Amino acid sequence: MSTLRSTLDFLLYDWLHADALVQRPRFAEHSRETFGAVFDTCERIAREKYAPFNRLVDTEEPRFDGERVILPRATHEAHDAYVASGMLGAAQDYAIGGMQLPYTIEAAAGTFFATASVSIGGGLLTTGNANLLMAHGTPLQQEVFARNEFSGRFSGTMCLSEPQAGSSLSDVATRATPDGADFEADPLGPRYRLKGNKMWISAGEHELAENIVHLVLAKIPGADGKLVPGTRGISLFIVPKKLVDTKGQLTGERNDIALAGLNHKLGWRGTTNTLLNFGEGRYPVRGGAGAIGYLVGRPGEGLRCMFHMMNEARIGIGMAATSLGLAGYYASLEYARQRPQGRPVAPAGKDPAQPQVRIIEHADIKRMLLAQKSTCEGALALLLQCARLVDEQHTGEPQAADEARLLLEVLTPVAKSWPSEFCLEANSLAIQVHGGYGYTRDFPVEQYWRDNRLNMIHEGTHGIQAADLLGRKVVMEGGKGLLLLAGRINATIERAIQQPHLAEHANALGQALQKVGSATKAAWATGNPADALANAVPYMQAFGHLVIAWTWLDVLLALPAQPTHAADEGRLRAARYFFHYELPKIPAWLRVVETRDATCASMPEDAF
Amino acid sequence: MSTLRSTLDFLLYDWLHADALVQRPRFAEHSRETFGAVFDTCERIAREKYAPFNRLVDTEEPRFDGERVILPRATHEAHDAYVASGMLGAAQDYAIGGMQLPYTIEAAAGTFFATASVSIGGGLLTTGNANLLMAHGTPLQQEVFARNEFSGRFSGTMCLSEPQAGSSLSDVATRATPDGADFEADPLGPRYRLKGNKMWISAGEHELAENIVHLVLAKIPGADGKLVPGTRGISLFIVPKKLVDTKGQLTGERNDIALAGLNHKLGWRGTTNTLLNFGEGRYPVRGGAGAIGYLVGRPGEGLRCMFHMMNEARIGIGMAATSLGLAGYYASLEYARQRPQGRPVAPAGKDPAQPQVRIIEHADIKRMLLAQKSTCEGALALLLQCARLVDEQHTGEPQAADEARLLLEVLTPVAKSWPSEFCLEANSLAIQVHGGYGYTRDFPVEQYWRDNRLNMIHEGTHGIQAADLLGRKVVMEGGKGLLLLAGRINATIERAIQQPHLAEHANALGQALQKVGSATKAAWATGNPADALANAVPYMQAFGHLVIAWTWLDVLLALPAQPTHAADEGRLRAARYFFHYELPKIPAWLRVVETRDATCASMPEDAF
Repeated sequence: MSTLRSTLDFLLYDWLHADALVQRPRFAEHSRETFGAVFDTCERIAREKYAPFNRLVDTEEPRFDGERVILPRATHEAHDAYVASGMLGAAQDYAIGGMQLPYTIEAAAGTFFATASVSIGGGLLTTGNANLLMAHGTPLQQEVFARNEFSGRFSGTMCLSEPQAGSSLSDVATRATPDGADFEADPLGPRYRLKGNKMWISAGEHELAENIVHLVLAKIPGADGKLVPGTRGISLFIVPKKLVDTKGQLTGERNDIALAGLNHKLGWRGTTNTLLNFGEGRYPVRGGAGAIGYLVGRPGEGLRCMFHMMNEARIGIGMAATSLGLAGYYASLEYARQRPQGRPVAPAGKDPAQPQVRIIEHADIKRMLLAQKSTCEGALALLLQCARLVDEQHTGEPQAADEARLLLEVLTPVAKSWPSEFCLEANSLAIQVHGGYGYTRDFPVEQYWRDNRLNMIHEGTHGIQAADLLGRKVVMEGGKGLLLLAGRINATIERAIQQPHLAEHANALGQALQKVGSATKAAWATGNPADALANAVPYMQAFGHLVIAWTWLDVLLALPAQPTHAADEGRLRAARYFFHYELPKIPAWLRVVETRDATCASMPEDAF
Repeated sequence: MSTLRSTLDFLLYDWLHADALVQRPRFAEHSRETFGAVFDTCERIAREKYAPFNRLVDTEEPRFDGERVILPRATHEAHDAYVASGMLGAAQDYAIGGMQLPYTIEAAAGTFFATASVSIGGGLLTTGNANLLMAHGTPLQQEVFARNEFSGRFSGTMCLSEPQAGSSLSDVATRATPDGADFEADPLGPRYRLKGNKMWISAGEHELAENIVHLVLAKIPGADGKLVPGTRGISLFIVPKKLVDTKGQLTGERNDIALAGLNHKLGWRGTTNTLLNFGEGRYPVRGGAGAIGYLVGRPGEGLRCMFHMMNEARIGIGMAATSLGLAGYYASLEYARQRPQGRPVAPAGKDPAQPQVRIIEHADIKRMLLAQKSTCEGALALLLQCARLVDEQHTGEPQAADEARLLLEVLTPVAKSWPSEFCLEANSLAIQVHGGYGYTRDFPVEQYWRDNRLNMIHEGTHGIQAADLLGRKVVMEGGKGLLLLAGRINATIERAIQQPHLAEHANALGQALQKVGSATKAAWATGNPADALANAVPYMQAFGHLVIAWTWLDVLLALPAQPTHAADEGRLRAARYFFHYELPKIPAWLRVVETRDATCASMPEDAF
């Protein structure tokens, strides 16, 4: 039986050769042993502080007592253990207390927490927030805010959406106006006063840390007092819940950020999700109106700064979706191995005088388990590969780094969307394996399914990802990213086709690649984005299946031709499942893309 | 904009000509007007007594105070209104207080309640229970039990599953032993004492009615004291919660049935779901051990009696799944018409200076709405057609009745499984249309999705339906049912192919039919059920898509060639969606069926 740890070890070392990263100067003090020690720690904390409380955080939702947001004690303890592990700053320089860990290892380690309790969560937002400041903040902003986030003293948020705008960031209406004549002289950065409402802010209010560092998108009005339409008017601000001095010490002043409401969600309930009002006047501060915020980067470049961390954030969501899928797989596998029910199908009919068998012996149960394995381990492999590309982009030779950047542009929408759709389906199968028990709250699988439903929505909806993929990524730089990916896929095909037991898969993958390539051209044949993008989601589904099939075939190349271990046989089967049961779906999705089918796009509203 | 009522009216009258049923003697006193009056009543009760409380029954789950199960007052009021409507006995003879309503109309009327609050529920179980007694009970059993169920004085359950057996009814271990020497002399039927545990019993304990009539599967031990293995040892018993006399009056004696636990579910929380212990001694009755039960039909024929009502019960589940799908469609359509966000895709890029548009103007939102419409209205059409076949079976000329029976054998697994899988996907799209709001409990769609997840599990799981379809229904009577269905499909194709605007669909349907036919043969080519059934679920998915495509094409034949109404344009589009986006998935599912792919079935356990 494979475990999460053994699967990670195989993918990281036998397949991705992540241990070779230690030959690079940045990671020179690391070794497979130090990576293993990180995994040991994360696995232990997840087992002791996360897994036992996953149901608790689902039933004891965050609540607001009028002053503070109350979370279960278990959440505080899990958070403290996570902070103590050093994982918040794991990728940072030794010089600022980090571990200089490759992102590949950091991302892999995150799966232990996410399979144990995705909504207690690790430090995805805090780390992402601080990483952004390390890239775009001033040295003092890094010192005061980012470093206190890496140490866990402060936590972080991302404040993008607004109630009236949602995915449409160009309609951000939060205003930022200079705070006094000396606004540019503040050592923490040009000081503004912000007014506006931010919706869907995860971890927007809680008592887990001393302070909360909100990174807020807002618009600076022009001389005419009007906001610049579109995204180019957006700037980025640090808006701390409590004001701090240049040493990072709390000044005792509360900033004007009010909790306007907690969102009550279908799942993922261990994480507070909030509507925040900035500068509504509930907590007037320093005699002015508005919440105090410090500009990060230059005015009008807020989105560019935010996009800096988008790849990692989206890989993080894909990893969360995958981890939930894996959690359901392991739970339903365990159940199927224990539960006796029914008898094998036999030519002469079932013999009721025979004892019942365990349900794992039934073909349809095996099908549902293998489908989960194929989906979730395939997604895990893709995400680890994307994480490995992030490391390449940061530490590789120039050409390799640029190729990694370009591949990530194309792969990131898939890495975010594919697991969020298909690992959710895997969770549904995990319920189905349990039968009626899976529909009760006495078993964990229904919660995984509810938690996972968020992943197609946050950090860019499915529709947004699809428009990004077909509308931007496969055509950017003259289609260079897509060509590069096709080159990598072809390289895998060429290696696989030489192995008789993989030749069938290699041919199937080659056909799929060709089909996706020609569909991409057909989609854009009129040059009109409205024609091309009308079926962007089916395109992304097909594209995702192509990428996962490629990933599986590439993984198989890391196996011995004659597998002797059960785990290797399992990987061969999981890949074969994907090629036989899933890959053939590609033509169905692409049909409407190739024909630029307008059935939906031209549907008259009154015909619904 | 179509409403549920206008969609039902179109399907029932323009397509199925259900008003022609009034030419049959049984329905002679009815007319389209009397049917309409029934719909008016049901629609009003659903709007006033069901819809406003759908969220309430989700949050105020049934609870047990040690003596009674407490349900919200709203559930009592909804139940009382349902009883007062006369719908429990709507299909029954005038002579016993019924309305002699066609089942088609009864089933259609049920959608008003199920879209408003599926888990407050109508009388599916009570009516089904009483119908079974009308078919297999003695005149006194009908008088005492069934008639009091139709009037709403008593409610009914079905007690099949047991904790250790689930879907595997041959392992039923509840024992029924004769109650004294005079056991055969009881006027209510041969009297037995039952001992055993029944799991997943919906409405197994509550205070909504004066009494609860449990229909219980149990085994009568042989002379050696042993239970006969397999399903042929199963008998059926009436086991009332409170004992009654031959006039149906409560005797004041409580039967030995103890509530062992309430199941806490993911959804469908308005309906109590229970574990019941029969005869454990908590409520000793009449000085003997065991719960008192009265045999229905002959010993050993319990399952045959139970199967009598299986078609209608399964159509009922398909209808519930479809109603939930429609509820999500209407909710997300309403949301998409109101919510402004973003701007249209344009060749020169989006113009942020333009005002936002309502999201229904975006192609991807239209796609998600049309997918829901296509799925849920297609499912509704199929289910109404199945209901019409039930009427044909009961009131048609002998040959037509027999054909209806045979078609129902083949179509019932589809009618149950297809909506439970695909209307659940529709509910997921309804969430997606809402974006983040859909993930909150402030909007109804997340509850529809949770409620709907049950339908692939109860009343025979997806796997059971698939084994029934491929293992039994398409091969029974020498494949006569499948041939008959193919004949009906071909008849539709022949009519459609003469209409230029339908010819493309007709050809596609013809190819799909051929493909399903040859896959059926290929699946059974070795004659070994284990080979054939290894991929029974993908087979059922493909078969279901064939049936829905046929249904849509047949529906289109009821439209004018040049539609002038928006609703007709909507139906043309919904059908086209299905033919362009969904039907092409059939080959992907059938590939593994045709090759009898053993990837899953032969997966070694330790390779997972």
